This record gives sequence, structure tokens and C-alpha cells, in this order.
Amino acid sequence: MPKGLGSLRKAVSGAKHAHAISPLAPKSLASLPPLAGVRLATGKAGVRYQDRADVLFAILAQGTQVAGVFTKSKTASAPVDWCRAQLRRGEARALVVNSGNANAFTGKSGVEAARAIAESAAAAVGCRAHEVFLASTGVIGEPLPFNRITSILDKLALDASASGWRSAAEAIMTTDTYPKMATATAFIDGRRVTINGICKGSGMIAPDMATMLAFVFTDASLSSDILQELLSAGVRDSFNSITVDSDTSTSDTLLLFATGKGAKHPAILKAGDRRLGEFQAKLNALLLDLALQVVKDGEGAQKLIRVDVTGAKTDDAAKRVALSIANSPLVKTAIAGGDANWGRVVMAVGKSGEMADRDRLKISFGDLVVAERGARAVSYNESMAGKAVAGPEVCIAVDLALGKGRARVWTCDLTHGYIDINGSYRS
Amino acid sequence: MPKGLGSLRKAVSGAKHAHAISPLAPKSLASLPPLAGVRLATGKAGVRYQDRADVLFAILAQGTQVAGVFTKSKTASAPVDWCRAQLRRGEARALVVNSGNANAFTGKSGVEAARAIAESAAAAVGCRAHEVFLASTGVIGEPLPFNRITSILDKLALDASASGWRSAAEAIMTTDTYPKMATATAFIDGRRVTINGICKGSGMIAPDMATMLAFVFTDASLSSDILQELLSAGVRDSFNSITVDSDTSTSDTLLLFATGKGAKHPAILKAGDRRLGEFQAKLNALLLDLALQVVKDGEGAQKLIRVDVTGAKTDDAAKRVALSIANSPLVKTAIAGGDANWGRVVMAVGKSGEMADRDRLKISFGDLVVAERGARAVSYNESMAGKAVAGPEVCIAVDLALGKGRARVWTCDLTHGYIDINGSYRS
Repeated sequence: MPKGLGSLRKAVSGAKHAHAISPLAPKSLASLPPLAGVRLATGKAGVRYQDRADVLFAILAQGTQVAGVFTKSKTASAPVDWCRAQLRRGEARALVVNSGNANAFTGKSGVEAARAIAESAAAAVGCRAHEVFLASTGVIGEPLPFNRITSILDKLALDASASGWRSAAEAIMTTDTYPKMATATAFIDGRRVTINGICKGSGMIAPDMATMLAFVFTDASLSSDILQELLSAGVRDSFNSITVDSDTSTSDTLLLFATGKGAKHPAILKAGDRRLGEFQAKLNALLLDLALQVVKDGEGAQKLIRVDVTGAKTDDAAKRVALSIANSPLVKTAIAGGDANWGRVVMAVGKSGEMADRDRLKISFGDLVVAERGARAVSYNESMAGKAVAGPEVCIAVDLALGKGRARVWTCDLTHGYIDINGSYRS
Repeated sequence: MPKGLGSLRKAVSGAKHAHAISPLAPKSLASLPPLAGVRLATGKAGVRYQDRADVLFAILAQGTQVAGVFTKSKTASAPVDWCRAQLRRGEARALVVNSGNANAFTGKSGVEAARAIAESAAAAVGCRAHEVFLASTGVIGEPLPFNRITSILDKLALDASASGWRSAAEAIMTTDTYPKMATATAFIDGRRVTINGICKGSGMIAPDMATMLAFVFTDASLSSDILQELLSAGVRDSFNSITVDSDTSTSDTLLLFATGKGAKHPAILKAGDRRLGEFQAKLNALLLDLALQVVKDGEGAQKLIRVDVTGAKTDDAAKRVALSIANSPLVKTAIAGGDANWGRVVMAVGKSGEMADRDRLKISFGDLVVAERGARAVSYNESMAGKAVAGPEVCIAVDLALGKGRARVWTCDLTHGYIDINGSYRS
């Protein structure tokens, strides 16, 4: 069991179905330092889970700027609608997140619930409701008993401290088997700033803008416009390049907050400023770290699968082929079974709808070329192919040999665990 | 166990993994009558399976006309390429089908294998190679040991008889748990003609033109052009409206043969001739019957799920929404678990990319309205909803209330059986 996960079982025992910790969980959990301008508190509202924290209240310093990306679902949740509306101003003073209920497809009562929580949080913090950001995760379609949340926000505001990062990551979990955290430091013009991020998965993961819920904080001083540019660039190769089960959530939310309370650095006026280079690189790496933690905790996951597609006509075409492979239940079950069934990779390339020339296609598992020029590789060896997919991390590489487009996506295998979890998650 | 399936276990015991017969199998197997102009034989070539028939040889009367539809996969199999090339002439004298190896992604050797089988069959029948149609189903990427097939075709040609329909349906099975057959009669201008069809599934099923392998024969006298029109129309609401796992095969092939050896009827010069009305209706019903047999034998299937979408802007939009629901692993696992989790239906509508107004959406399970106008139905009752998904056949109806587009598709639930079968199918 990964270091630091020993006490986790207790933390999630309130969930009706506690599942074994993913074998792909990080060896040790990241330890997030305090971040100037952010105070955190968690509490037990009993929205759905009993005897565990299910509400996160993050209180942000005056002047905090915010950017965000959201699900492209046509049935987005009430909190997603709320955040989209407030994001135009780019100002944030608080974040309230609950697990157990997604407040999605809850009609007018869902809109009212979101407003009630925002107003209650604003009163507790002493800010305006439009400075409060919201996210909810859990069951879709159930009315959210928001008064259970609003009734504890005053107390949480009093409890809030700089040191609650792990508790924060745990409070937002649903079927996740471990809390997902990452931290980084970067220098902006010689001044050191910190980036902390938390997120949660772990089914209904096929982000088309962001994954279910992820919150990233920095004490750098950056405007919401710059944050938005950085975030939109960073999400492409991280959260928008993972899939667990091809099912895009109603609730996907990724918010990036900058408190401006860290080491003073010169004003940065545009995202392209080269003094932001390291910050962008560190932010991208942190986003990818969090996204991979989501895949590694995909429901039932036993293996992490990386799919690299090269030689497509365009990067977009490469990504569609890569996602066709990564979302194929037949590819995912084969990998689960330790079967280097590259014929199913061929099938997935073929069904993607993208250009492919059977006689140019090259497929590898790890370093082993298994197929090239329209047929099995001459050097193909069943036992070596088996070894290439035996471990907990599997790489599938496909070269279409048609152009220079490329993409990399990550997914996990499809196992009995997924069926167990999803055949009974709600009941 | 359905009547007539008692001896099936033996028939499929040669497959490495014999699975329990689907609980959705028909109560009794259709009994197909002889069809004038078609003789059938099956044999054990040992392509992959041992101790079971794995080759079907159908010999067709002189003058037989043929039409076909095929997979849209960009990595179509060699037999699919072969059939497409020969179809232009519209003439058929023989059909050779093998199970156990799909002859897909087998490069030049696959093309040569297809040609060798066609030439060998032509010699056995006394026809031209271009009058021989081919199909292969099974593992992708393995070279097809075609000489095992060609070496038995002469003997099969001598054995061929009018009565081998069930053996024919069994010989083309892979992970199918029962043989799929249907028969119908229709009158053309007062003359009675017969239609017989056989097909196989049962994973890698998301036909985008036809399902894996289906062969339909009639003794009516119809030109290949008319057959093609009838088939293209009939496939839309049958084989092109089913999905088991969203994975489109490299081998999808549906061929329709007309021997012209049944009761003499007046020449029909166009598909729109109203004297073909009943024939088209009966053909459509037979195609749907076969397609549903495929879904009911979807790998691991325990429940048949029908998805009806109405009120879309267009029929195509309705179909995309319906397939988004039918292909959602979260919807399919919920139904498997007997959970009327309509929130996941909301999610699937939202991720389809099609227009949807959350506040107009109406969702029903069977006759029970569970959600309307953006929220849970006022009359919603958990135990009634549970009952609506408890049986072996579940109907999910979604009304988008935006227009007049509608679509109906069928799928099956996603169970542990699917994982069992596909985690070890090839090894």
C-alpha cells in the first residue's frame, strides 16, 4: 500500500461502496505546502455519504484572479453554469465543493441550490456571491439538499487554515480510491511561486475540456486573462488527453486561482511573456500529473495505457485515432487480460474514421514492433508481445505514415472492477 | 435452455472458450426450409477451432444475383475487399465463409489467401472466381492458413445439399452462443417466394454498414441493382441500428443473394415496383430479426436494451443521441445492475454533441416517466423505476422536444461476461 494511504480506508469508509486502492496509486502521496492566500476547511454535511467529510470550503485572499475550463456536455450541471456565468469577472474569494451529489439535471431547484450555497458562502467570507465558485460531484438527477451544506459554512469559515490540503483532496472524492494532489514551484523573474493542485476522478471520464473536478492554486500574481490562456494551453495535453470510459461528465470543472500573495514579482502583462516560461512548464507538468492520477484511479484500473499516434495528416486526426484506441472496450479488455491483441488496435484505427493505409500502418507495444506494412511483423514473437503488456504500464504506438500529425493520450484497462463499481454505484 | 439448443454445446465445444448460452436466446430456433437454387455444406478445416465445423460452402444456381453492404472500417479485411471488387458484376455462384480467422490486416498474403480460396471454390463449382463471394471472421492479424480450407472444398461441393441451414449457421459462429437464423415468405404478384437468412455476432459489434457476417438468400428473381436498393434501405433500421460495444469490425459483411429458382413471377424492373412492397417488408423484418439475434447474443449480454429517441432536429441527430446512450458503458453497467440510473442517460445525451435543452428533456424507462423539464419527474418512484429495468428487456425513451427527428437502436447490457470473454479470447 502506498505510503500515506494507510489512513485512507477510514477516510472513505463512509462511501457505500469502498473499493480497494488502485494498484496504480502513487507510491507516496504528494505533501502540499501552505500557499499564501488560501485557507481550507472541510466538513461533514451528510449530503449522501455519512461519517466522512463531503464539503470543501476554500477561502481566497482579496484580489484573487481565476480562470476555468468546463465540460462541453449539453447537459452541464448547475454549478458549471454558475461558474461559467461568474468567470467573466475573473474575481474569486471562495470555492465550495461537495461530493455525493452532482446537482446536475436538477432543474430550477438546482439553480436555486447553487445560488443559496454561493450566497451563504459569501456571507461567511464577507464577499459578493459572484466571487464564489462552486462544484458538485456525485449522483446526477437527485435534488441537492443544499441546506445541509449552507448550515455548516459559517463554522467552516472559522476553522479554515493553511494546512488542510490532504483533507481537501479527500473531501471531494467519490469512487476515487486515493486523494489526488500535486505541487510545484516555479520562478517568475527570479521570484519563487508555488502551485498546488487537487482533483478527483474516477469514472465518467472522457474530458472534453477538463476532467470532473480539479482545482489549482498559485500564489503568483497573474490576471484572469493570463490564467485563462495558460490554462487553455495546459489542458490540451493533460486533462483533454485522458479517458477512462469515454463517458463525458456533466460536471467537468477545472479552475485555476492566483492569489497574488506569494513572493512579489514584477507585473506580467501577457501570457506570452517569456518570464512566464518556467511557470507555464511547471503548470503543464502539474496538470499532467493530476490527469494521470485520475487515469490511474480509473474505476477498476489495473494498468495504465499510453497511446501514441504518429504520422497522421494532422494532430487532430492523430488524437481521434488515439482516442478510438483508448476508448475501445476490446483493446482495454485485451490489455486487462495480458493479451497483446494488436488486431484489436487495427480494428480501432479502422473504426476511427480517419485516413489509414493498411499497408503503411505500424504498431508497437513498448519497443516491440508487432505489425508493419499491412501484416504481422516478421520478427513477431508471441511471448515477447505478451511480456510487453504484462506490466502495470503499457505503451501502444501506432504510426500511420501519412503525415506529421501526432497525439498522445492515456487510458486504463477495462476490468471486472469497473463492472462491480458501476453496476451498483447508485443503489 | 431454448428448444433446439440442447445439442449446441457439443457444436461449439471446439472453441477454446465455450460460454453459457445467452439468456436472451430465442425460445426456439427458426427452422429454415430448403430454398431453390441454394445447396449448402460445412466442414472441419481446423483453421483455428478443432473438432467443429468452421467452413461454410454455399453453392448457388446459375444466374444468381447478389448485392452487399460492408464495413466502413478503414482497415477492412481482405475478403471484404474481394467482395467489394466482385460485387460490381452482381453475379454469384458460390459463397465460402470461415470462422476462427478474419483474414484482416494480413497484407499481401491475405489478398493471396482470398484469391486462392475463390479460385479453388470456382474450380469445385465450375464457375469463375469473380462469381465466388468470401467472408472470414475471427482473430485479426494472423495469416490465414488457406490451404486447410481449399483442401476440403472439392469434398464439400460433393456433399452440398438443400438442408444444411442450421449447420451453416453454426459453422460461422465465433463467440456466439447460439446460431442465428430467420426465414420468411412473401408474395410477388401472387407468387410465393422464400427468404432465408443466417448471421453471426457477437462482439466488435457497432455496424456502420452491416454487422459482422450475415447472408440472406431468396429464390425470387431480382437483379443485383434491385437487390442493392432493397438491402441498403433495409439495413438502416436493422443492422445499422444495433451496437454491442461500439467497436466496428474490420469484417462486417451482409450479402443478399437471389437465385431466381423459386415460383416464377413477372419480371420486376425497379425496386420501387409496388409488387415488391410485401417482399421489402418481409425482408426488412427478417433483417431486423437477425440483427436483434446478434444483440441478444452480445458478449456477456443479460438484457436487451431498446433506446428510442424522439423530438430531435433530424433523424440523424436522433440516431447519434441514441447511439451515445447505447454505447455508454455507464448506462450499460447500470442496466446490468438493475439500477434505473437515468442520470447516466442525461450524461449520455449531454455528451452526444447534439442539441439538447436540459429543461425540455423527457426520459422514460418503459412506460414510467422518470425525468421531465430539467429535473426528476414529480411522480418519480424509485421502486417503480427499479421494476422498469428489472426484466430481460429494457426500453429507454428520450424525448428532446426540439423537432421531429427520431431513431431507435438496440444494444445489450455490459456485464462481467464481456470482460471474461474479451480478456482471454485470443490467448
